[in-house]
Amino acid sequence: MKIITKVEEMQKISEMHRQNGEKIVCVPTMGYFHEGHLNLMRIAKGYGDIVVVTLFVNPTQFGPNEDFERYPRNFQRDMELASSVGVDYLFAPTVEEMYPDGYATKVVVTKYTDKFEGVKRPGHFDGVATVVTKLFNATKPNVAIFGQKDYQQTLVVKQLVKDLLFDIDIIVAPIVREPDGLAMSSRNVYLSPEERTVANEIYNALNKGVEAIRNGEKRRKHINSIVIEHLRKFNQFYIDYVSAVNAENFEEPEVFRSGEKVVILVAVYLGKTRLIDNMLATVP
Amino acid sequence: MKIITKVEEMQKISEMHRQNGEKIVCVPTMGYFHEGHLNLMRIAKGYGDIVVVTLFVNPTQFGPNEDFERYPRNFQRDMELASSVGVDYLFAPTVEEMYPDGYATKVVVTKYTDKFEGVKRPGHFDGVATVVTKLFNATKPNVAIFGQKDYQQTLVVKQLVKDLLFDIDIIVAPIVREPDGLAMSSRNVYLSPEERTVANEIYNALNKGVEAIRNGEKRRKHINSIVIEHLRKFNQFYIDYVSAVNAENFEEPEVFRSGEKVVILVAVYLGKTRLIDNMLATVP
Repeated sequence: MKIITKVEEMQKISEMHRQNGEKIVCVPTMGYFHEGHLNLMRIAKGYGDIVVVTLFVNPTQFGPNEDFERYPRNFQRDMELASSVGVDYLFAPTVEEMYPDGYATKVVVTKYTDKFEGVKRPGHFDGVATVVTKLFNATKPNVAIFGQKDYQQTLVVKQLVKDLLFDIDIIVAPIVREPDGLAMSSRNVYLSPEERTVANEIYNALNKGVEAIRNGEKRRKHINSIVIEHLRKFNQFYIDYVSAVNAENFEEPEVFRSGEKVVILVAVYLGKTRLIDNMLATVP
Repeated sequence: MKIITKVEEMQKISEMHRQNGEKIVCVPTMGYFHEGHLNLMRIAKGYGDIVVVTLFVNPTQFGPNEDFERYPRNFQRDMELASSVGVDYLFAPTVEEMYPDGYATKVVVTKYTDKFEGVKRPGHFDGVATVVTKLFNATKPNVAIFGQKDYQQTLVVKQLVKDLLFDIDIIVAPIVREPDGLAMSSRNVYLSPEERTVANEIYNALNKGVEAIRNGEKRRKHINSIVIEHLRKFNQFYIDYVSAVNAENFEEPEVFRSGEKVVILVAVYLGKTRLIDNMLATVP
């Protein structure tokens, strides 16, 4: 595995592979790899010839009171893990390389961004859309893989790719969970042992919501209530939002239709740590 | 010359040429070709192997009270002219192809856009930055050629390319003028015969400003006054703005320094027709 830190070098390498007729698959990450990331990398290998993992903790997608500074980092370990699953290139630019002085351009997606993470984290999706555009232009992939855990982000990225005409296929890979059900996240390291013991109740709450849908519950507010009720049993949670929405257009009808694909979205605080998770279900 | 109307087909063609190791040069235009456009196309041939001219009257860069609807169009003639100078592909998508229903992404450049055209035409540069991004992704060029006549646009596009990491060289080609000095523009057809006889005074006014700079005038307001004074001799002009600015950073110092590269920008109305022009000079 080669480590690349300069945009120009990355572009030359990608250009060379594309000229060879090789297909490039990009996995954008913020590092501190866990099994979820490694799963994305393994999936990537099935979609092309060359796997490029980008590792960049993007400051523009963090709010001023968020955890950019303390976001966990371990480059040495990330290198070893990425290498161990057969990644070809690890593109890890500095903040200065990505946002040099005088930087003055942003990409704004207005669909899917006026709710949930878009409201709770103002500017977050502008930062995501901008950095994804830059990472695509730096790595020139044919395919890019994103994790379902950031569900809203996957919709925003798909819209971006469609609207800006990026000739890139977007693949969404399923959430990888700890044995007790907690969705894997770099932010899980923030949790105290006590918080960690209750964190899997997000998964249990989501399961109850999905079970209700499968058993015929179509009233959105009732589905939400089932999830909220479970979370409220554990007073360590502060609920940021819980919402069952149409998984494709993000609309929130009073009653879901038969055959409708629904995603239940959850964001909670456990102490100071903000965790998000989601689960899909199809209305019977 | 092949006419392409679909993004997907254009991308496949560009991909094929790039895999062949051929260099693609893109010339973005809004059609209604004049000698200025043909000059861009001829210059393009010197920068690569394949010339792709895009022809798209982009609605998002026109304001609600501007001339999108009546902007001159002549596709048959444009095809013949582009073909006659050796263009390989004319990419002419429909508005529906470029902005399908549900379109929801824009690219915003905040540098160089808070003055002149950016103020006089609110949203104009968002429209330009967005469509240029899309046209780049549709045609996948190695090089793109823009005309100096839209001087501010060339700065915005260079900033966009730098900030979003497009691996594309931007070439700015000099203004082509009518024998009497009027800068060629598709909008010149709007001019009545009477307006046309006075239109070249924009060129004469710019020349006076540049002459003053060459003769040692460094005070910005004095340079502006010389240009304005000349234009005011012709009461057909309504002056939208006249400004001598640093040609690289768009700053407006009280006094220019020796060696400073200056561009004098002019926008005037002649009747209902808005014309822009500019001229470069280096302070001795």
